[in-house]
Amino acid sequence: MCEAHAYLLAPGGPEKVMENVVSLRYDGDQIVLTDLFGDEVRIDGTIKEIALIEHRIYLEGREASPA
Amino acid sequence: MCEAHAYLLAPGGPEKVMENVVSLRYDGDQIVLTDLFGDEVRIDGTIKEIALIEHRIYLEGREASPA
Repeated sequence: MCEAHAYLLAPGGPEKVMENVVSLRYDGDQIVLTDLFGDEVRIDGTIKEIALIEHRIYLEGREASPA
Repeated sequence: MCEAHAYLLAPGGPEKVMENVVSLRYDGDQIVLTDLFGDEVRIDGTIKEIALIEHRIYLEGREASPA
């Protein structure tokens, strides 16, 4: 199978946000990740890099500006 | 192997732009696709959808405005 794990690039290093991702699509400003079981995670951010052989997806969040 | 084929969404239907893609990354406003052999294709556009199980990557080009 060709699912991948999705990581959000954070200041402390990549944080795993979903395992076994089978598809990504944009819905407006959000990325919708869907896993093998049909579960969805929505991320306010953008796709940074996808490494298919390593089964890794890197996302960048939209930073909230400090109050 | 988990490489995928990349298609550019065009008015006449998806056009294949690269086979056996192993990675995608953004370089400024361009998407850089790399295949199994290390060859690169650059697309002025964005990632629209990635379907890992179907091994398909859909890209959207930035339309040139009509003169």
